[in-house]
Amino acid sequence: MSILISEVGPRDGLQNVSAIMPTEAKKDWIKAEAAAGIREIEVGSFVPAKLLPQLADSAEIVAFARTIPNLVVAVLVPNARGAADAIRAGAHKITLPLSVSETHSLRNLRRTHVQVIEEARTIAGMISALPEDDRPHFEGSLSTAFGCTLEGSIPDSQIASLAAALMDAGCDEVGLSDTTGYANPVSVRHLIKLVRGTVGQNALTGIHLHNTRGLGLANVLAALEEGLDTIDSSLGGLGGCPFAPGASGNIVTEDLAFMLESMGLDTGVDLDKLFAVRSIIANALPNEPLYGFVTDAGIPLGFESRTGKAVLSA
Amino acid sequence: MSILISEVGPRDGLQNVSAIMPTEAKKDWIKAEAAAGIREIEVGSFVPAKLLPQLADSAEIVAFARTIPNLVVAVLVPNARGAADAIRAGAHKITLPLSVSETHSLRNLRRTHVQVIEEARTIAGMISALPEDDRPHFEGSLSTAFGCTLEGSIPDSQIASLAAALMDAGCDEVGLSDTTGYANPVSVRHLIKLVRGTVGQNALTGIHLHNTRGLGLANVLAALEEGLDTIDSSLGGLGGCPFAPGASGNIVTEDLAFMLESMGLDTGVDLDKLFAVRSIIANALPNEPLYGFVTDAGIPLGFESRTGKAVLSA
Repeated sequence: MSILISEVGPRDGLQNVSAIMPTEAKKDWIKAEAAAGIREIEVGSFVPAKLLPQLADSAEIVAFARTIPNLVVAVLVPNARGAADAIRAGAHKITLPLSVSETHSLRNLRRTHVQVIEEARTIAGMISALPEDDRPHFEGSLSTAFGCTLEGSIPDSQIASLAAALMDAGCDEVGLSDTTGYANPVSVRHLIKLVRGTVGQNALTGIHLHNTRGLGLANVLAALEEGLDTIDSSLGGLGGCPFAPGASGNIVTEDLAFMLESMGLDTGVDLDKLFAVRSIIANALPNEPLYGFVTDAGIPLGFESRTGKAVLSA
Repeated sequence: MSILISEVGPRDGLQNVSAIMPTEAKKDWIKAEAAAGIREIEVGSFVPAKLLPQLADSAEIVAFARTIPNLVVAVLVPNARGAADAIRAGAHKITLPLSVSETHSLRNLRRTHVQVIEEARTIAGMISALPEDDRPHFEGSLSTAFGCTLEGSIPDSQIASLAAALMDAGCDEVGLSDTTGYANPVSVRHLIKLVRGTVGQNALTGIHLHNTRGLGLANVLAALEEGLDTIDSSLGGLGGCPFAPGASGNIVTEDLAFMLESMGLDTGVDLDKLFAVRSIIANALPNEPLYGFVTDAGIPLGFESRTGKAVLSA
């Protein structure tokens, strides 16, 4: 079985890093990680450069990433204006977050649910006006789905109706996002069933989980068992000190890839090459801590990578 | 459903700590953790004091722990001589490790498989000679079951025959131990099925997993799904820097308890009280790092603890 690891470090990771990563280093990172076998990378976000100087070069990064064969170039957009920029830049996949907590939505995007759904409708209209071959894939991401730091848990009915509203507005699919690190294996299963029961099985294939409370990979296992096949993660857990309030605490790509490969699942990833990508980030952002258990502990003796290569480190 | 968290910190954790923890601090720890709802604690190991000065007070600790109501007082023994001491001290549960890697067995216990099985037989004989009410529960623990740093992976047939040999020698049950942190959710499920297929379902109920490569809680989830109901862990991950070669990297009790409670499983643990036990270790061993994600990130807003108490921290 094949699982898609969707690397979000160049967007979600860097978004939480104050030191600006040079554009060339970002390109090196994306190129090296694609060469290690990662097939989808969220490379930037189309927000005003003033608000997020770290991602001001997103258009240039998208243009570069598009030159890498077989790489799905994904971006985040906060609204229709950002989506127009993303489409102009040539992104293959566009994700619009919709916080199922309206309090969080108002604070984060300064928009009500109705307003965000309206943005989704506008974006879907822009996409459908494109020639068929140029249309990016459009995902609506249900953020704070597993609970909100402001509202606590969000009612099932609200999550289901927002998922349906995103699909009605013209999204190709919805995603589940544990923005706050509140998910557990039972709630992961529950929400996948709930949302799939509302929008259909093919309209929910991916999940964005955090390791804020140490449950990241256990939650991945639950998601896999429910049949999802796309998992977000960030190389080195970049930007996510799990111990700092507000930090992302993304799942570490290296640990995720190791778990999946050790389970006999096909990620297409060469673990040694993937681990080597860390040095690009470490050199460009020397003050940024990088996380990862398997990178420190080493690959088990006798571990046979799915890449067909025996890896024999400690 | 009820899950037993078996705390191994006072033995497995401390075994990897060079600074000697004062006996009174150990007692405070065990007492406080039992008061937080932990129902089984491995409090020591009956090895020669010269070899392991940290655990030289095991007899005194067992005597103290026995005074705590409803607490199962567990100990590790390397051989029949240690078991005699453990029985004399009054341990409720005695675990004898048998490394399924014979290379590891020779290096660690300086005994072949045949010799360890013989020790098990002697111990079982000692126990059966006791009055029925005084007999400790006797577990044979299959260590390095998920692979050995010296031999790599161990053949299924060898693991199954050693499990059978331990039961034949008179163990009440066997346990699986991922000594090296090599396990993944697929191998966890596989070995549980293999060993239960050999010794029967009731003769394998517990597992000792490490978080060395970040897969600890994912592996717990797999074990729970296979029907095991006893999980080892160490408060604060004591003694287990996952990044130091040879360190234990035990699963952190706080994170385990949080995961289980958040899944709606009954551990009997009061999370706030459990987290507070860390201060006892921190005060007694100020230079020892303590681990844990949930203790740093806090309990989710709106989290309803199974203890019936709403916990409303960040």
